Amino acid sequence: MPIQGSVRARTAREVRSWDMAADVVVVGFGGAGVGAAVEAASRGAETLVLERAGGPGGASGLSGGYVYAGGGTSLQKACGFEDTPENMYNFLVAATGPNPNTDKLRLYCEESVSYFDWLVSMGVPYAQKFYSEPTWQPPGEYGLVYSGGENAYPWNEIATPAPRAHIAHMPGFGGSGRGSGEAGPGSVVLKHLIAAAEKLNVRHHYDMRVDRLVEADDGRIVGVVAARYGEEVTVRARRGVVLAAGGFMNNDDMKRQHAPHLLGANLVGTEGDDGRAIRMAQSVGAAVQLMDKAECAFGLHAPLLVRSMIVNLQGQRFVNEDTYPGRVGQAILMRQNRRAFAVFDLESHEVAVPAGTTARRAEPTWVAETLAELEQLAGIAEGGLESSVGYYNKYAAEGRDPMFRKNPKWLKPLHAPFGAIDIGSDVFSSFSCFTLGGLVTPPSGEVIDVDGDPIPGLYAAGRTVSGIPASGYLSGSSLGDSIFFGRKAGISAAAPA
Amino acid sequence: MPIQGSVRARTAREVRSWDMAADVVVVGFGGAGVGAAVEAASRGAETLVLERAGGPGGASGLSGGYVYAGGGTSLQKACGFEDTPENMYNFLVAATGPNPNTDKLRLYCEESVSYFDWLVSMGVPYAQKFYSEPTWQPPGEYGLVYSGGENAYPWNEIATPAPRAHIAHMPGFGGSGRGSGEAGPGSVVLKHLIAAAEKLNVRHHYDMRVDRLVEADDGRIVGVVAARYGEEVTVRARRGVVLAAGGFMNNDDMKRQHAPHLLGANLVGTEGDDGRAIRMAQSVGAAVQLMDKAECAFGLHAPLLVRSMIVNLQGQRFVNEDTYPGRVGQAILMRQNRRAFAVFDLESHEVAVPAGTTARRAEPTWVAETLAELEQLAGIAEGGLESSVGYYNKYAAEGRDPMFRKNPKWLKPLHAPFGAIDIGSDVFSSFSCFTLGGLVTPPSGEVIDVDGDPIPGLYAAGRTVSGIPASGYLSGSSLGDSIFFGRKAGISAAAPA
Repeated sequence: MPIQGSVRARTAREVRSWDMAADVVVVGFGGAGVGAAVEAASRGAETLVLERAGGPGGASGLSGGYVYAGGGTSLQKACGFEDTPENMYNFLVAATGPNPNTDKLRLYCEESVSYFDWLVSMGVPYAQKFYSEPTWQPPGEYGLVYSGGENAYPWNEIATPAPRAHIAHMPGFGGSGRGSGEAGPGSVVLKHLIAAAEKLNVRHHYDMRVDRLVEADDGRIVGVVAARYGEEVTVRARRGVVLAAGGFMNNDDMKRQHAPHLLGANLVGTEGDDGRAIRMAQSVGAAVQLMDKAECAFGLHAPLLVRSMIVNLQGQRFVNEDTYPGRVGQAILMRQNRRAFAVFDLESHEVAVPAGTTARRAEPTWVAETLAELEQLAGIAEGGLESSVGYYNKYAAEGRDPMFRKNPKWLKPLHAPFGAIDIGSDVFSSFSCFTLGGLVTPPSGEVIDVDGDPIPGLYAAGRTVSGIPASGYLSGSSLGDSIFFGRKAGISAAAPA
Repeated sequence: MPIQGSVRARTAREVRSWDMAADVVVVGFGGAGVGAAVEAASRGAETLVLERAGGPGGASGLSGGYVYAGGGTSLQKACGFEDTPENMYNFLVAATGPNPNTDKLRLYCEESVSYFDWLVSMGVPYAQKFYSEPTWQPPGEYGLVYSGGENAYPWNEIATPAPRAHIAHMPGFGGSGRGSGEAGPGSVVLKHLIAAAEKLNVRHHYDMRVDRLVEADDGRIVGVVAARYGEEVTVRARRGVVLAAGGFMNNDDMKRQHAPHLLGANLVGTEGDDGRAIRMAQSVGAAVQLMDKAECAFGLHAPLLVRSMIVNLQGQRFVNEDTYPGRVGQAILMRQNRRAFAVFDLESHEVAVPAGTTARRAEPTWVAETLAELEQLAGIAEGGLESSVGYYNKYAAEGRDPMFRKNPKWLKPLHAPFGAIDIGSDVFSSFSCFTLGGLVTPPSGEVIDVDGDPIPGLYAAGRTVSGIPASGYLSGSSLGDSIFFGRKAGISAAAPA
């Protein structure tokens, strides 16, 4: 297990001298870390951020820049949508369960309007334009989109649909599947927050990896031990340490222990997502929760996805294809062992992928004149696809989908010739995941131990903890949660001990 | 979270005097604890068992008394079955994954024949008779049965089928569903092992609940703090502490954190399955793994199950009904949110449940002349059941099941009138579960910390750890694992420090 030496806390007695000191020491300079730093510093706490990478941003900086917000934000209103904190809460309780984090959801929904205003006040730009098509990520000139299946079954029957992904403005970005590699709208959000932190005199060190906590005899966390270019650096935290160092998608041992279904999938995030901060806290008795949970994106062109039948190895459907694509990915991951197929007819394919589309992952793996042939090619159980398509076509002709309630506008009987895309096979290893489980915190950010008590001096936020996307994920819920509860942790850590 | 006060380890410096002492202190007197005690004592270690209940046995003593064993045991041979350690291993690797515990499986399979001989040498009686019908638990005069779907798809294509549940002889027990309430064959196994422990001068205290570990400055576990009738008792362990105190099915907070899908299900086990030992070890930095995994029994009469179609709320099948019933329970739990239906025709019902059968849970919840009517009664998606039955009947008429490969002997087209049993609804809350996740140990039983290193002086076994039934469960794999690796932990703990 040890990747880079022990994560075991050092006792304060073992630390002979401190190389640095601050009131609040923040571990990680992504969305959660910068949120914590800004709030701690603006409360007068001397704040120091230690980041193991060569620069700031973390996974948040690489993200699509969705912040899940609602309850009637200025952007929702400008785009003509009504929403209330209660309506948003009702949706999130249903959509992030089982075991939604209701305390965090309550606060998040109540403060969502002012949270969004705060982002705007930090300088994050938003285009006041709603994108209505199914997508993972709309073109850069749009600022609002559905990102959690709010307008699809079963959520549309639980709460009034409202789009809540608020996307930082980045002209020219996206539009054909997810932007990958290139810096995305997440970098726009982070740029403004980092500028705010610097204006508040937040100090930071890059290339400094925090390796261990330092624990006083009474159990209080009083600092950290870090490594910079192989040299050990001791850093005293007068008031508190905030762990904001990401999840564990980049640690195969932890995946094997907690989420073996993620082994072999691609990483969403950074090299630093090795779970070290989670384990550092565990070494002093911190609890963890929902460590099996994850989100997985799979690179299927959304306009094709919504017109397809997504089926398993038996040829059965298991999800409405017009829900948020990330939910389809979760269903394939958690319930189908990462094997599924998108089945469509070539007529729909032409509509979804018109000539000249540069969409990735939109070409059929197989084309066939009959479903029996397609079953053979794909290794689907004999007759299974034929049976499913028979059912689907019968009701699609009536504009209905009694089994999964896909919106009638996407329902059309499938006719030969057929095509299918192999999702999740070795050939099409397109699952890119990040972990949702982690440390246990109340909304105020204290790290909770196995007794259910806070560990004095220790705070955490972002994907180092289990947050808003507890079990179910919506795009924007992780970045939104990270910055929001990073801020809360920063406020708590800055309070004089 | 605290149920009965803190689980935080006490430092050795805080312990002023020891009320008791032994070389090896075993926490819990169930299958794992008695295995540890017998081996530690027979190696000359002064051994003390602390049990929180008023008597020995734990969940093992309440169990059906299946020990999963194979590779060519004397009982397998007497019943005419061939098996090898390699064949058993191949099956278990596939059937207990994803992420099977290959190190433990390798040892378990290699030593399985001698393990069974040891149980016999301890005096555990076995009837040399194989039961061939589908069942949760055969009548008491049988000693060997299939308990993991070894003879069903897909396992029958991975390894040569051999029955491996070795059932302690208890005339008159079982035969009509699971024995519940009454003492079962598990008590027979435990009785003989406890007698062996007493013969070896193992001391024990009942009504003594271990609350915390005691940790020396160098991190070594040197004892425990227990409570007896409200009084604190300190117990020194000269060589080692073995945690063998069960799982966490009786702790709602831990289920909420790790396995929310288990909330509301019934308990298989004892009041003591509150995860306290797991948390005690976590407080000193122990790692945990696969905390979401569980086994669930549901009380459906097996001869009816095998003749039914098990379908979900969409009317779709999702498992072969002739696999081990516990696997059907796991599939309903983990992949269908605990909602499913057994659908059959009344002709099959008559065969499976002949007049005079005292089987519980065999009466139809609904009876209907048409599938459409049954869909309405059960709340199954319109047309979903009709579509599934159409597919099933078409191939059943040919003696085939291309979708799930149920054995042809159970395949018969369903004809009106139909019946269905509602599994897992509030009305039929029949899921009884226990947890499979826990501490991380190598085959030799040392408790591993978040660095991947053993915690000196601390050992564990049974459902306090993640064992042979890592993700997938077979009956007999938990009791078999508990006693077997309890013995290994006892051997390790007895070695002079």
